[in-house]
Amino acid sequence: MVGGGPGAFIGAVHRAAARLSDQFELVAAALSSDPQRSLSAAEELHIPRAYASFTEMADQEAQRDDRIDAVAIVTPNHMHYAVAKAFLDAGIHVICDKPLTTTLQDALDLSKTVTRTGLIFGLTYTYTGYPLVRQAREMVLAGELGAIRMIQVEYAQDWLSTPLEATGSKQADWRTDPERSGPAGCLGDIGTHAYHLACFTTGLRCSELAADLTTFVPGRRLDDNVQSMLRFEGGAKGSLWASQIAVGHENHLELRIYGEKGSLVWDQENPNYLRHSPLGEQPRLITRGGPEVGTASKWATKLPAGHPEGYFEAFTQLYSDLAEQITARLDGRAPDKRALLVPGVEDGVDGLHFITAVLDSARNGSAWTSIPKT
Amino acid sequence: MVGGGPGAFIGAVHRAAARLSDQFELVAAALSSDPQRSLSAAEELHIPRAYASFTEMADQEAQRDDRIDAVAIVTPNHMHYAVAKAFLDAGIHVICDKPLTTTLQDALDLSKTVTRTGLIFGLTYTYTGYPLVRQAREMVLAGELGAIRMIQVEYAQDWLSTPLEATGSKQADWRTDPERSGPAGCLGDIGTHAYHLACFTTGLRCSELAADLTTFVPGRRLDDNVQSMLRFEGGAKGSLWASQIAVGHENHLELRIYGEKGSLVWDQENPNYLRHSPLGEQPRLITRGGPEVGTASKWATKLPAGHPEGYFEAFTQLYSDLAEQITARLDGRAPDKRALLVPGVEDGVDGLHFITAVLDSARNGSAWTSIPKT
Amino acid sequence: MVGGGPGAFIGAVHRAAARLSDQFELVAAALSSDPQRSLSAAEELHIPRAYASFTEMADQEAQRDDRIDAVAIVTPNHMHYAVAKAFLDAGIHVICDKPLTTTLQDALDLSKTVTRTGLIFGLTYTYTGYPLVRQAREMVLAGELGAIRMIQVEYAQDWLSTPLEATGSKQADWRTDPERSGPAGCLGDIGTHAYHLACFTTGLRCSELAADLTTFVPGRRLDDNVQSMLRFEGGAKGSLWASQIAVGHENHLELRIYGEKGSLVWDQENPNYLRHSPLGEQPRLITRGGPEVGTASKWATKLPAGHPEGYFEAFTQLYSDLAEQITARLDGRAPDKRALLVPGVEDGVDGLHFITAVLDSARNGSAWTSIPKT
Amino acid sequence: MVGGGPGAFIGAVHRAAARLSDQFELVAAALSSDPQRSLSAAEELHIPRAYASFTEMADQEAQRDDRIDAVAIVTPNHMHYAVAKAFLDAGIHVICDKPLTTTLQDALDLSKTVTRTGLIFGLTYTYTGYPLVRQAREMVLAGELGAIRMIQVEYAQDWLSTPLEATGSKQADWRTDPERSGPAGCLGDIGTHAYHLACFTTGLRCSELAADLTTFVPGRRLDDNVQSMLRFEGGAKGSLWASQIAVGHENHLELRIYGEKGSLVWDQENPNYLRHSPLGEQPRLITRGGPEVGTASKWATKLPAGHPEGYFEAFTQLYSDLAEQITARLDGRAPDKRALLVPGVEDGVDGLHFITAVLDSARNGSAWTSIPKT
Repeated sequence: MVGGGPGAFIGAVHRAAARLSDQFELVAAALSSDPQRSLSAAEELHIPRAYASFTEMADQEAQRDDRIDAVAIVTPNHMHYAVAKAFLDAGIHVICDKPLTTTLQDALDLSKTVTRTGLIFGLTYTYTGYPLVRQAREMVLAGELGAIRMIQVEYAQDWLSTPLEATGSKQADWRTDPERSGPAGCLGDIGTHAYHLACFTTGLRCSELAADLTTFVPGRRLDDNVQSMLRFEGGAKGSLWASQIAVGHENHLELRIYGEKGSLVWDQENPNYLRHSPLGEQPRLITRGGPEVGTASKWATKLPAGHPEGYFEAFTQLYSDLAEQITARLDGRAPDKRALLVPGVEDGVDGLHFITAVLDSARNGSAWTSIPKT
Repeated sequence: MVGGGPGAFIGAVHRAAARLSDQFELVAAALSSDPQRSLSAAEELHIPRAYASFTEMADQEAQRDDRIDAVAIVTPNHMHYAVAKAFLDAGIHVICDKPLTTTLQDALDLSKTVTRTGLIFGLTYTYTGYPLVRQAREMVLAGELGAIRMIQVEYAQDWLSTPLEATGSKQADWRTDPERSGPAGCLGDIGTHAYHLACFTTGLRCSELAADLTTFVPGRRLDDNVQSMLRFEGGAKGSLWASQIAVGHENHLELRIYGEKGSLVWDQENPNYLRHSPLGEQPRLITRGGPEVGTASKWATKLPAGHPEGYFEAFTQLYSDLAEQITARLDGRAPDKRALLVPGVEDGVDGLHFITAVLDSARNGSAWTSIPKT
Repeated sequence: MVGGGPGAFIGAVHRAAARLSDQFELVAAALSSDPQRSLSAAEELHIPRAYASFTEMADQEAQRDDRIDAVAIVTPNHMHYAVAKAFLDAGIHVICDKPLTTTLQDALDLSKTVTRTGLIFGLTYTYTGYPLVRQAREMVLAGELGAIRMIQVEYAQDWLSTPLEATGSKQADWRTDPERSGPAGCLGDIGTHAYHLACFTTGLRCSELAADLTTFVPGRRLDDNVQSMLRFEGGAKGSLWASQIAVGHENHLELRIYGEKGSLVWDQENPNYLRHSPLGEQPRLITRGGPEVGTASKWATKLPAGHPEGYFEAFTQLYSDLAEQITARLDGRAPDKRALLVPGVEDGVDGLHFITAVLDSARNGSAWTSIPKT
Repeated sequence: MVGGGPGAFIGAVHRAAARLSDQFELVAAALSSDPQRSLSAAEELHIPRAYASFTEMADQEAQRDDRIDAVAIVTPNHMHYAVAKAFLDAGIHVICDKPLTTTLQDALDLSKTVTRTGLIFGLTYTYTGYPLVRQAREMVLAGELGAIRMIQVEYAQDWLSTPLEATGSKQADWRTDPERSGPAGCLGDIGTHAYHLACFTTGLRCSELAADLTTFVPGRRLDDNVQSMLRFEGGAKGSLWASQIAVGHENHLELRIYGEKGSLVWDQENPNYLRHSPLGEQPRLITRGGPEVGTASKWATKLPAGHPEGYFEAFTQLYSDLAEQITARLDGRAPDKRALLVPGVEDGVDGLHFITAVLDSARNGSAWTSIPKT
């Protein structure tokens, strides 16, 4: 693991997911950019091989017989590129938190590196690990909704409704700092999740968007509210709203997909239910692990229906799937197809294309802006 | 009453609201544009004074000692202007269904006529009659949410998901016919409701918008899906979605208002509840007739908490309020202030400005388009 | 109308329902037990024929050519019997609020009187007027749930959580007064509604019950909380809870029916939805006026799906149905079968049997107590 | 670990909870009553020290320097007693699944053994690990609801709606078999959870109950539906319903507590929310990790608000708390008080008293039956 020392949020989540998956052991780490903190943090977490820096770790692990199978990158965004690059070059599979990088150029370079090395690269867009998100994707791709017409996706939080970054909050600090987060605030932090979710579940490519970015909190250096209208290949339209100043929302990521023959609604805060409304029929509630669910959802389900799963379990699914991919590689066999839904480097590039297009459109009077194909 | 013969939807609603309000008696009508149908329909409904046409009705009522106090106009949209004009000129108060007219010019002319005649003009934006919509308005205007930042409003239906107008549906037929509905389909039919609701509850003026209009159903002659981004005076942003092809939604009009200090969420399909999330506190459920509700909501409440009110009761409130206004006029006194929330002709003009701006923006690559002050 | 002067709750509801049904005109009344108040109240409500007492009204109406078609009885419970008796003896159809009487003996006598006179007798168990309650009944009787196993019904309010009757509340005063309410408090006021709803929707007869009655509020003279276990003919079990001290509930009447092949859940506070869970399939939401609803529900539906109906509309349905029954009688034809679901005098007798059994069981250590067949 | 070989449900849950807690390592096991299966299962799960039987395991572990700190017992119910006894006698702390035993006598004996040995004994009533269950308890004990009046608890499932045990289902088989489950079916399996939850959250002792037990599914050997009325010390009343034939419910454990000053509602299927209705105020939603939550809830919270936790996390909390208790014992210090909410052997005895009283009451015409103090 690189990054994610004590006190960091997402590092602890990655570690919990790895443990719960029962497929990984955490044996080496460079947990901080400060060499001394890096060593002490690893000791605190009982990690056997502590390194002072990620470069040292990549170098030395590459030379060990019992080298790590994969590295988890959980640093602030601006470090993702260099760390990922180092480990890929060292021949080590990568599990990287999102967003992939802070610049499109870095993302494209990383994509090439993955192609060149042939290594496994997992990007932890958490929400793709939820069983019913996969159920939604499976239904849409199977044509159960008919041609998709409208996609409504929104990711609303309220933790940045006030200038929290001015109060010493570590989480708020780096996320609102262009140096460490890149040029996108709310847009990069959660807007990318929403965008990826819409594309992941529908299999549609977004071709252009028109966006309006706002910074509501005085003094804030990055956007905290993103509105956009989307147009997808094939004629579907969409609307994406991401906000970190939407008072009353904790982590409200909601996806609604409307097709000719039906619609689906899913909300991350109540993730064990998926509402399906077939045209002209009564809406029905698909429950995780419940009646009439499909293959993709069952694969990702860990508990019987009615025993709620949550955020940790979704994250764990990404780790389980990556374990299957890595194990298959080691075993020289094809991985189970159901384990291939983990987002990869190309999803990361898509995310950077999205960020870039939103920034461009917003700077340009919300003009419709094309999104290149990855 | 003009329009609203047997089989018409909104005419029957107006009559029910008038009865339930216990303030009106229906004594004269021109229920159809067909003279014979007009007379027979009135007989069927036991209305004493049947007229062959609205012009005849306006003329003759104007000359009676026991003339009607007000006329209700419930024709298809394209007739609103001429009928309203005729009755205003005859010195009779008007209760008109929305949208006010099919062209901005007619709307402006009607507005002048109302000013000139000094008559009462009520425009039945139904949703302003709901007690908790008024509660929301009262809270926002009292500053309980602080400065407003984001307004999310959506009005989604699914009854036009298929080409219903091709099957002989009378309702679908005129609503998708530019001759009778004007140049806006879904936009005029329900988009205006959503727009009005956002403005009514926040007291904010929308200064510009960027819109994308779509007709999803092949062969349809008017839009059936409206997306737009809004900018309000004072810096608030908004998003408006109206759709009649959103499978799974019957009459989903949802309003969400986010301010610096709190948010409100209301859904017309469950109208007896209003969710209020104060910043940093637990969200609470405001119930119609329940604890801690304000004056405006109490005025519009007819039943104790827990005894659900619905669409008829909201509509009835508009009639009750107009009755109070008319009675006060007859009595030569000032009406109760709480009865003044019924939308008027200026709200109708606002609606036409909105429609015009959306059409302009959509034709112009979704460019930001100014909305004139009424 | 007898009873229901200004300030009374249920009288105003009956009048609103009559108006909204568009089938009744209120032409005669004895609105108060105080002769002077009775006359002045009628004047205030613009009722043409005001009577000083119900006996006078029954006598004189019986002799008029333009006599009333039916009388609505909306007095406190203890008067129901005498008033109903007087009008039945005068040959006038009766619409009576529940409970039928305050004693079983009176109820039985009234039942005989109805049989003897052959008159129409409607008992306004409001909740049977809701379209989806009728939908539930239709589904159960059609066998869609298979044999019924468990019925869970609860009616919880909180308005009597404190000794409200000691504060001058007129509503609280008579409802907690054994002289005017009879020996049952919460039990008679709302427990009977719950019991009737369970029987109405399932068509099952309750054969015995075991009950525990409690008075939680110090100084209160009647019960304010009712618990009971039920056994139905055919082997179904049930549980009934009625409470007026359940803080947080406004008017929570919830019915849940579990059969071998499916279940139904309905809540009066959100009455436009009925949840149906077929065995081994996904739960679905039946919406009032929506897809796949049956005949009984459609008959009672006044507005399109998504336009909420509520308490007034349910009440109105009872008036509409009684109007159809009375009109058919006047016309010498059979009434529409769909209008025959209004509860009658026999449901009132059932209610008294239920009250009597609960009181007996509670006095007798919650022993299982038989309920006689009506 | 004893019991819980591959395919078993609860064994896998215990292992996941142990891993996720990051406080336990699984080093020894006797996973099956079949010696050969026991050894092979341990190998399959990569558990270093495999034993052929629990007696062998208890004996040998007791003699090791690196002996296990605690044993987790996840066998069918009828084995709990013997296994727990063996490990307690071996001086090893015990984590035991519920119910404690299948007979009251065994439970009382185990209780004495725990007292005698002074060892730590955790009983995994899962639902006490949910943060908001602890929040409810903290609020009730702090008097925020005032004196408790009514407790409504229900645990409804539908997986045994049909004779599943006749189809080869291992889970259904032992749970409906008196030899392995004891004399209580649904009553012991889930009724005890509901009963414990009611007592745990209110701190009230149930003094007597009246119960009706039913076996709805033909051929089933144990009850599948439990109804009971409860009376608590101090005057509170309660109602408990447990059912495994309630079609439409997956794992619906709902608790509602009504006091003089407020009420709480919690549902296991949506465990991150707790509804609090203070008397005369608007109901509010307490969210896990959200505003204004108390100490007990925060202690048990692993993720920020809006990132749902579920069943695994609740279970994990019990393991974390027991780890704190065991570590404190090893360290010779007092454990953190917040870790003391894990149910113990006395809760297990309470559960057996409850089972016994229900069986007695049901056999005795639902007579009120006393529950002895533990």
